[in-house]
Amino acid sequence: MNDAQHMDHALGLARRGLGNVWPNPAVGCVIVQDGRIVGRGWTQPGGRPHAEVRALAQAGDAARGATAYVTLEPCSHFGKTPPCANALIAAGVARVVSAMTDPDPRVSGRGHAMLREAGIEVTTGVREAQARAMQQGFLTRVMQGRPMLTLKLATSFDGRIATANGESQWITGPAARRHVHALRMIHDAVMVGGGTARADRPGLNVRGFGSVRQPVRVVVSSDVLPDLPPEGADHGPLWQVGGDPDALMTELGSRGLTRVFCEGGGVLAASLLRAGLVDQLVGYTAGVVLGGDGRPATGELGLTRLADAPRFRLVETRRIGPDLFHRWLRD
Amino acid sequence: MNDAQHMDHALGLARRGLGNVWPNPAVGCVIVQDGRIVGRGWTQPGGRPHAEVRALAQAGDAARGATAYVTLEPCSHFGKTPPCANALIAAGVARVVSAMTDPDPRVSGRGHAMLREAGIEVTTGVREAQARAMQQGFLTRVMQGRPMLTLKLATSFDGRIATANGESQWITGPAARRHVHALRMIHDAVMVGGGTARADRPGLNVRGFGSVRQPVRVVVSSDVLPDLPPEGADHGPLWQVGGDPDALMTELGSRGLTRVFCEGGGVLAASLLRAGLVDQLVGYTAGVVLGGDGRPATGELGLTRLADAPRFRLVETRRIGPDLFHRWLRD
Repeated sequence: MNDAQHMDHALGLARRGLGNVWPNPAVGCVIVQDGRIVGRGWTQPGGRPHAEVRALAQAGDAARGATAYVTLEPCSHFGKTPPCANALIAAGVARVVSAMTDPDPRVSGRGHAMLREAGIEVTTGVREAQARAMQQGFLTRVMQGRPMLTLKLATSFDGRIATANGESQWITGPAARRHVHALRMIHDAVMVGGGTARADRPGLNVRGFGSVRQPVRVVVSSDVLPDLPPEGADHGPLWQVGGDPDALMTELGSRGLTRVFCEGGGVLAASLLRAGLVDQLVGYTAGVVLGGDGRPATGELGLTRLADAPRFRLVETRRIGPDLFHRWLRD
Repeated sequence: MNDAQHMDHALGLARRGLGNVWPNPAVGCVIVQDGRIVGRGWTQPGGRPHAEVRALAQAGDAARGATAYVTLEPCSHFGKTPPCANALIAAGVARVVSAMTDPDPRVSGRGHAMLREAGIEVTTGVREAQARAMQQGFLTRVMQGRPMLTLKLATSFDGRIATANGESQWITGPAARRHVHALRMIHDAVMVGGGTARADRPGLNVRGFGSVRQPVRVVVSSDVLPDLPPEGADHGPLWQVGGDPDALMTELGSRGLTRVFCEGGGVLAASLLRAGLVDQLVGYTAGVVLGGDGRPATGELGLTRLADAPRFRLVETRRIGPDLFHRWLRD
């Protein structure tokens, strides 16, 4: 196993934290002694303990002289926990391989510098592109002050979400609906507009995947909300927010969210698209045609030139049950 | 090589005729003597000569005692050419393997019977499902009196074909547009509504694939058409047709068409979908969002129940350039 393969392992562990660790980043750590894996860790639900602390605890004395693979530069500041760089030094680790430096310009590089000053060999940038893609939510919050935003549209072949008289259950099949819950699970929050909240009273929770940290429910509306279930084991906190799209996303970022999953409706989707805030588009297309009198998936964008339309590039497509799944990233 | 493998070879040859041989079926024929391929043929442009005649001519004396693989039961009646069953008998073929019997109930089985009466061993039904799928246009015309209909929609992520003020060039990329020409090439005719013909003056021809038989241009309109290019090397015959969808498709079938490729507009697409006449849906989805005020891809269907919406099943999906291609067959 080479450095890249061990880092892939650490990235796989880091992914387990997505949706569970906000406001912290989802990090993975693998400790290798003489080619043998002696410790594995990932950021725990709520963001603590950190990945390195878990992996070092598992490795115990075997960490002395070992190599630690971490998907993000170890932290160097005293926050709610002592810095991970200190823990790696104290454990006697000989070498640290990291995928990327901390994106926060105020601390960027300090963790690596601390390790080097302690005589530890440091290699950085291993599988950096993969780490950046996985960390997109955390990076967006640090660099732009807002969470990464995924917009989901589940539509007919001709882009409709309901018949002319409003019937919408179900356009896509059970496999696609289950897949939506899997995507909610790796986001910190599920967001809908007030109209959708009032019309559909959606659960906005994760069902069918055992015990999980439920996502925050964000409803964008300045009007009174319908009676939604209280926070508990089956439902995350309920946040009602308003304001223009930029202000609202900044507000969600300042509250600590890193990954937000928007499920409509069309008016909210259009306002987010128009503001250039959608980072990822997720489509489920069903093999049914509803016609131009069906309800459109997106509200008005007011475009007069095709060149001004928001553009995305295809990164994934496959069949899910009878439906077509496709995922796009902002161009 | 076993029977199925030789039939796959014959099916591959037959495919070369799609779009070129109407009103006849696209047939392929392979003649095998002692495991060696001694003759190959497929229906020639315009529908004649037939595949068997070409393959037998190529085989010459080597056809004596050989096995002939044909994708459709050899014809048994004197039409514009003598029957192929006679030709196979005269050539001294010992065995005939066919994929399917002639779908026309008036002649179904007669070709096979003639061969058997002449002492030839006959095996039928080899790769029948594949042969039926490839022959869907011919089968639809024989059994239902109308051509098979493919409906193409090239849209934005949210099912739009133009911005609110009508800008539509180009939503999909050059690779997808080239792919459209490849699909036109394997259809007998390209069809659009009168509104599209007047607004876009589309070429409705095959470009970029060398010398081909150009598809018939069908414009559905009872009004005066714009000045479209005359029939010639670059453009097929121009047929103006009207009437309700069922009558119009029956008219096209009676004129000999087996495979029709409809490229819109939305009103024609909706009328064909409403009448249950669409056999295949072909979608090109671009990574661009145009909003609910963009021009929809389909006209009004007047559906009140989701259960009444036309349903299709996904048979193919892949990336074409930056766009998503997906193909569906009627459920």
